[in-house]
Order: sequence, then C-alpha cells, then structure tokens
Amino acid sequence: MMKRHLLSAADLTRDDALLVLDTAEELARLADRPIKKLPTLRGRTVVNLFFEDSTRTRISFEAAAKRLSADVINFSARGSSVSKGESLKDTALTLEAMGADAVVVRHYASGAPHRLAHAGWIRGSVVNAGDGMHEHPTQALLDAFTMRRHLDSLEGRRVAIVGDVLHSRVARSNVLLLATLGAEVTLVGPPTLLPVGVESWPCAVAYDLDSVLPKSDVVMMLRVQRERMNAAYFPSAREYSRRYGLDGRRMALLPEHALVMHPGPMNRGMEIAAEVADSPRSVIVEQVTNGVLVRMAVLYLLLGGSEPAIGASVDLDNERGAAS
Amino acid sequence: MMKRHLLSAADLTRDDALLVLDTAEELARLADRPIKKLPTLRGRTVVNLFFEDSTRTRISFEAAAKRLSADVINFSARGSSVSKGESLKDTALTLEAMGADAVVVRHYASGAPHRLAHAGWIRGSVVNAGDGMHEHPTQALLDAFTMRRHLDSLEGRRVAIVGDVLHSRVARSNVLLLATLGAEVTLVGPPTLLPVGVESWPCAVAYDLDSVLPKSDVVMMLRVQRERMNAAYFPSAREYSRRYGLDGRRMALLPEHALVMHPGPMNRGMEIAAEVADSPRSVIVEQVTNGVLVRMAVLYLLLGGSEPAIGASVDLDNERGAAS
Amino acid sequence: MMKRHLLSAADLTRDDALLVLDTAEELARLADRPIKKLPTLRGRTVVNLFFEDSTRTRISFEAAAKRLSADVINFSARGSSVSKGESLKDTALTLEAMGADAVVVRHYASGAPHRLAHAGWIRGSVVNAGDGMHEHPTQALLDAFTMRRHLDSLEGRRVAIVGDVLHSRVARSNVLLLATLGAEVTLVGPPTLLPVGVESWPCAVAYDLDSVLPKSDVVMMLRVQRERMNAAYFPSAREYSRRYGLDGRRMALLPEHALVMHPGPMNRGMEIAAEVADSPRSVIVEQVTNGVLVRMAVLYLLLGGSEPAIGASVDLDNERGAAS
Repeated sequence: MMKRHLLSAADLTRDDALLVLDTAEELARLADRPIKKLPTLRGRTVVNLFFEDSTRTRISFEAAAKRLSADVINFSARGSSVSKGESLKDTALTLEAMGADAVVVRHYASGAPHRLAHAGWIRGSVVNAGDGMHEHPTQALLDAFTMRRHLDSLEGRRVAIVGDVLHSRVARSNVLLLATLGAEVTLVGPPTLLPVGVESWPCAVAYDLDSVLPKSDVVMMLRVQRERMNAAYFPSAREYSRRYGLDGRRMALLPEHALVMHPGPMNRGMEIAAEVADSPRSVIVEQVTNGVLVRMAVLYLLLGGSEPAIGASVDLDNERGAAS
Repeated sequence: MMKRHLLSAADLTRDDALLVLDTAEELARLADRPIKKLPTLRGRTVVNLFFEDSTRTRISFEAAAKRLSADVINFSARGSSVSKGESLKDTALTLEAMGADAVVVRHYASGAPHRLAHAGWIRGSVVNAGDGMHEHPTQALLDAFTMRRHLDSLEGRRVAIVGDVLHSRVARSNVLLLATLGAEVTLVGPPTLLPVGVESWPCAVAYDLDSVLPKSDVVMMLRVQRERMNAAYFPSAREYSRRYGLDGRRMALLPEHALVMHPGPMNRGMEIAAEVADSPRSVIVEQVTNGVLVRMAVLYLLLGGSEPAIGASVDLDNERGAAS
Repeated sequence: MMKRHLLSAADLTRDDALLVLDTAEELARLADRPIKKLPTLRGRTVVNLFFEDSTRTRISFEAAAKRLSADVINFSARGSSVSKGESLKDTALTLEAMGADAVVVRHYASGAPHRLAHAGWIRGSVVNAGDGMHEHPTQALLDAFTMRRHLDSLEGRRVAIVGDVLHSRVARSNVLLLATLGAEVTLVGPPTLLPVGVESWPCAVAYDLDSVLPKSDVVMMLRVQRERMNAAYFPSAREYSRRYGLDGRRMALLPEHALVMHPGPMNRGMEIAAEVADSPRSVIVEQVTNGVLVRMAVLYLLLGGSEPAIGASVDLDNERGAAS
C-alpha cells in the first residue's frame, strides 16, 4: 500500500485494493495451521479509539491485531477525558505520544479520521473504522473480498445495494471500491433515502427492487436504523419492509449463483427475512470471518514497514521472524 | 472431559469432575514457578460474552485464559449491537465467524448458554459463567476443589448451603455437583426462598440453621441480593440476618474442622459477620484463587484438543511446547 | 527502590527518585529498537483498578505494563461488585487471590491506595495512580523526568506551579518530589485555591503570576476542573483566565530556556492558550511519552524482584532473559 493511512475507499487504487485482497487471501491460508498467531506486529501498539459504540467492529480489529501479535489498547470516549471536553487534537497528540503505531478510529462525525491523519498530530497510521455518514473502507474491502471468493473476479459483476443509502457509510465505501474494481453497482431505495448528488456517483440508481434482482450477482442489504423510523423522510417500517425488504419470494428472483450480503447487525424481519439470512445463498457469516482477515491484511500492510512484502511467504510462515 | 461445552454441573460425570479437580491441582503446583504462564492456548481466542455485569467472574476467566497464553476479547452487551436488538443467534454467529475458540457466557436469562451451545451456531466451546437463576458450574467446581483441599475427599461430607436458594445459581450447581461427588447437602433457608420442587433435588432441606451447623463439615453462605429485600417473599433484612446470618455465636456451633465458604461478593453484617468472614475457618479468599485454577483447568480440557492429556506433566512443563 | 509500593512522592528518597529517573532513561534508549517490547514481566499480572474514570492514566499504565510483557486486567468500578456495595477490603482480597502482582489504583477518596497497601490485604505492589485531592506520584516522576531531560539537573531550578492547587494531587506530588530533588517551587494561584497550611509545605507561595514568570525555569499550568467553576471559592472563568491563564503575552515574560508544562487534559483557552500549548517551549506532548517510560520504570523496579538491578543493562538487552 502506498499510503500510510486508510481513510477512504477512494484512496485505494486498483492495485492497492488488490494487494489488500491478495494479502487477506494469504492470511486465510494460515487459519488452518494449529497456531493461528503471527509474530509480525510484535511490540507494535494498536489503539482502538471509539467515539461511538461498535462492539462488532472493535472486536474484529482487536482480533485482527492480536493475531498479528500486536498489543491492543481500547479507548472508548465514553467516560474519558474526551467527555470532559478534550479536543480531538489533544487526544491524538496523547495517543501519538504514548507510542501508538496505528489508531483505528470510529467517530460520529464525518471526516474525523481525515483530520486525525492529516493535521500532522500523528506519525502512526490512521484506519477509518467508520466516520459519521461518510465511509467505512475496511467494510468495503471485506465485502469485495467475500464477493471475489465466490465470483472469482469483480470485473463486470452487478451488485445491488439496497436500503437507506443516505445514512450509510457502508454503501458509500462500497460504491467507490467496487467501481475501482470494475463492478457495476446499482443503488436501490426510496428516493428520500438516496443522497442528494447521487447522480454523480459511479453507479446507477433504481427504485424498484424486483426489477433489479434478476440481473444481480450480489444483493447487499443495508441495515435499517430503527431510530430513524418515523422521521419524515422514512417510510413506515411496514411499508419499508414490503417495498425494500428481502424475503423468500424476492430471493427467488435472483440468479442461481447470486450472493446475499449484509454488513450486520441485521434486523431480521425488517430489511431481511430470517429464511433469507440463513439460506445457503447468504454469505453474511462469512463476511464476519473475512472482516478479521481483511483487517489483518490492512494492519500488516500499513505497519509492516521495512518487512519484506507479504508476498514473500517465507515471512508469514516464519513464526519467529519478527522476534529475532 | 468428554463434552465440548460446560453448561451445567449436571453434565459432569464423577470422572469428568475429578479430572477437572485433578487438573486444577496440577496447575496449582505451577503457581510456585517464577513464570506462571503456560503456552498451552497460544493463538486461541477466548471471548468473554457478558450480558450481565460481573467483574469478578469476568476477570477470573480473563486471568485464567491469559495464564494459558490465550488471547482474550471482552464483549460486554452494554452499548453493543446486542442493545440495538441483535439476536443471540446473530451475536453467536458473529463470534464464531471471528474465530472464537471458546465463548464464556454470562446471561440474565436461564438457558441462554444451552441455546448458544446446542443451536449449532458455534463450533467452539461454550462455558456457562452464570445464567439467570439456573447454573454457575465453574463456581461449583471451584467450591468442590476448595473443599477437597481441606477435607481430602467429599465422599460423605456434609455441606449446608444457607440463604436465598430460590434465586441462587450457585446453590443449584453446587447441589448437583456435590451429589455427584458423594457429599450430603442440606439446603437451609426460609420456606419462601426455597424453590418449588426442591423435594426432588438430591439433597435435604431444613429451616433451622442452628440445628444443622453442629453436624456440618462445610457451611456455604449465599449472597443476599439487596434489591430483593422488601419483596413479599423476603424477610426483612434484620429478620433475615437474625435467623440465617452467620455470626460468631453460630460459627461456634460448627465442628472444629468445618469450613466457612461464600461465593462473594459478601454483604458483611448481613448474611455473614465480618469476624466470621475473616476468621481462620473462612476459606473465602482461597475460593477466589481456586477459581482461577479451576477455570484454567476447564479451558485447558475443553480447548486442549489433540494435546496430550494434562496428566502428562511433560506438556505442562514444556514452556515452548505449543509454540513450536 | 526500597519499598514495595509507590503511594506518595514523599516516600521517595532522593536516591529512589533518581533510580526511577535513570531507569526510565535507559528504557528510553530501547524505544529506538525495532521491537520495543521487553520480556521482563512476562507472566506477571498488573490490574488497573479504577474507581474513577481516567482513560489517559489507565492507558499509560496499560501501555507501560504491556511493553514489559505483563498481562493487564482492567477493572473499572463502574458496574462491578464495587457498585453493589463490596468493600475496598473485599475487592483487594479478591485481586490478591487472583494473583495480581501489582494493583494500579485510582480512587476518588484520598488515602485509598494507602489503605490498600497497608491493611495487609495484598502481597503485591500498590501503585497510586491518583487518589482524591491527595497525590499522583507517577505524574510527579514523569514531570521531573521531563524537566531533567531539558534542564540537565533539577538542583536549584525554579518551578512555578499555577492554578487550582487546592484540588490538585498533581501539585501536591510535584511539590514533594521537586523539593527532594533540590528544585525551588513557587505555587501561584488565587488565595481561595491554595490549601490551608500551605505555609508548611516546602515551597514558596505567590499570587501574581506576572512577577513570578521572569525568574522561572519551568511553569506548570494546572488543569481547571470546569465543574468547580462558580463555586464560592472559585473566580469566574473569565477572571481566572485573565489572572492565571498562560497566554502569549505572559509566555514572553519567561526566560528563553524555560519550559511550559501541563498534566493534561488541557482546557485550551482557559488555563492555557492554544498558541502556548503548541509553542516550541511546550513539552506537554513529551510529558505523555515520558509517562509511559516512567511507569515502565516504576513497574520494573517494584516487580523486578530478584532480577538484577536495571543498571545491569545486559538484563534489559536480553530479549529472552526473563523467559528462560
């Protein structure tokens, strides 16, 4: 990876993205070994800086870092000096001064990871683990990794992303990365839940799910935020589910080989029916497994530094390599 | 251990239970070495999945897993996707997909660990760390371990368990395990705090503590949940303490060799007087130490897998064994 | 270090303090190595027992312990048995029984670490990480370390400590340690924010900041607790800032070589202007880095036990030393 940070899916060239996916593929092969742990990041410190609760994302990064033998420090902004009014700058300077090699940041404000990375406060790497309604690049990478495993290449593949696109950093990062990788994305949702300016995004837009499904290789259902229900721009729960929920009938409209995806956590019965979530077409659980692999790959590539490239499998296989 | 999970004291045969206790005994011998850490579970991941706060139990399992070199990830349901309505099933699938080798679960609902283990969501081991008013099997194992260290064998030993049996998973698990190990248990408490159907349990029941104490080898005081006071079925605090609290006078009724136990945290002055808690007969602090040893034994036996049985002390003594 | 605990800056002789600073200096040299981790405390358990939130101090100790390869267990009193009314004694006995080699304690009550250390509940080491309005000795050590790095020796150096001294454990510990190390301290603040009996402290007192600055080698600004504003003894925020805040004009009164310090987290614009905090004279970020080094030194010296003294650099350099 050329850059020091991973802030946006837009920062990834096609080669960058493929390097992450290929690295994750190599790491997947190690999962069969009796000891899954690699010494690669021994002595490095990864800080999970979470201004917003997200247990799933936090433990995915935590598991990834620990499997690379890094030390992990969890910093939840709840009850911290942040809640006493400390600025993002001073929090950053503090983590930097403590020797954080990477800061994995989740923030309710769009753009916070960019400020963290580009204000010059931090020498270590910044990984965006979700910022406001903006981006969630490792989610897009794990989604692309999951698709590629099943569909071989993403070139020309058709991906429908369905639901509340307006508030979804997952959708935004996926559109950007999938375009880079040559897939054709169609966003599907009610007009009030599509962002203003979506016409300039590298994707198509549709309002009728039934007509999109038969020509999709992948359908990715977005999570509905229950707290957004009853807002003026949001259809009623019942109406939403009826028009944009993926139930058994709709799943039958998909081609035989198509995949069903969801970033989790799911609202079963709302945007996705239980029978669909648990069907053989669903790769939702695999996405979680792949999330750890892709995050390992990202941390490896950002922090590996002077180490030989991951392609040199001797490094990955050498348990004692980094320790000696 | 034959089974993959530890859900209930009832699942343990006499041989299973003795294997855990003997394994803990071996691990205790290692505590004298300069480096207390064993490499046995290096590269394995233990998730503490706590739907209910219990710092004591959580850190006991955390210390046990870390002493076996496992990676530990703490997942508190507070503020997690669980609180956003994620189902137990999806939480389980997520942890499984992230590669959890063992899930230590504490849940406010009786039976949750059984669902987790038997619904087919998880390939790893499930350890019940307390479910509702149901069971807490590692507590029973550490209690049995503590008794055996002082009383040699449990065969024919008389154990009084005193207090709010109705709401106590500790009492339930102890009755089951102690019966398996040949001890004779008497439950003592006010009729309203004994469960319906207690007649079918493998133990005796009594209402008068003073008459039970002189013939007891062990008296185990249960914690009073202050939040249950003033409920219709609960005597007043003063009345409870007067009739079922263990004070100095009552302790004097015990045989010379008898042990005083309590699962903690204690309400000093309520179910147990400070002078009793701190007396030489009290093994309450030892119970905590033994908790770590017994939990190490359980994790070792559940996750050790293809490793030689713990009885082969060469394995335990070989610091580098699992790493090579 | 002669003692087993670090409770107060007053406990440190001049030799003790210099040993900590020299040890931290040696550890600083290791920070340049590719692997920053030392095996010294492998198999030891450090518990962070925090009765008060303090993410900065907690992660500083956590990073320090992990860099020495200790296992770290975080115990926050929020939501624990402590909040169910467990006594400090029983919490202590529990941690001791679980095998804590060191307990790093932060408590809202002055004196809690002393009780923990001296009541005989614990065999391990107790490190005071801030108790009430009393002391914060590792903060004083890291401040002294930072000053020494820039000013060579502390002998005869003049240090102004400015602000709400009354409520500041940082001020108290600094006065004690700096006196031991031969520096001359002047406390500066409004009379209502200076403690009763300050006349007997080993330092001078002044009310006018402008007159103190020109003859100071160091000016240490104390954090203003916003929640104390508007109390009877507190000037208004505006008045406070005008009389005791360090802005650019005031900074210009300092000698060329003088250092600006702050324990963090800062209220930029209140007790310290942003331009001052970020100026080349400010060593505030360095203080954070040094905090990890000094805490490593303290844990090393308290827990190193039978190991050769840290002065024997062979031990520090031997990656496998403690493991064999």
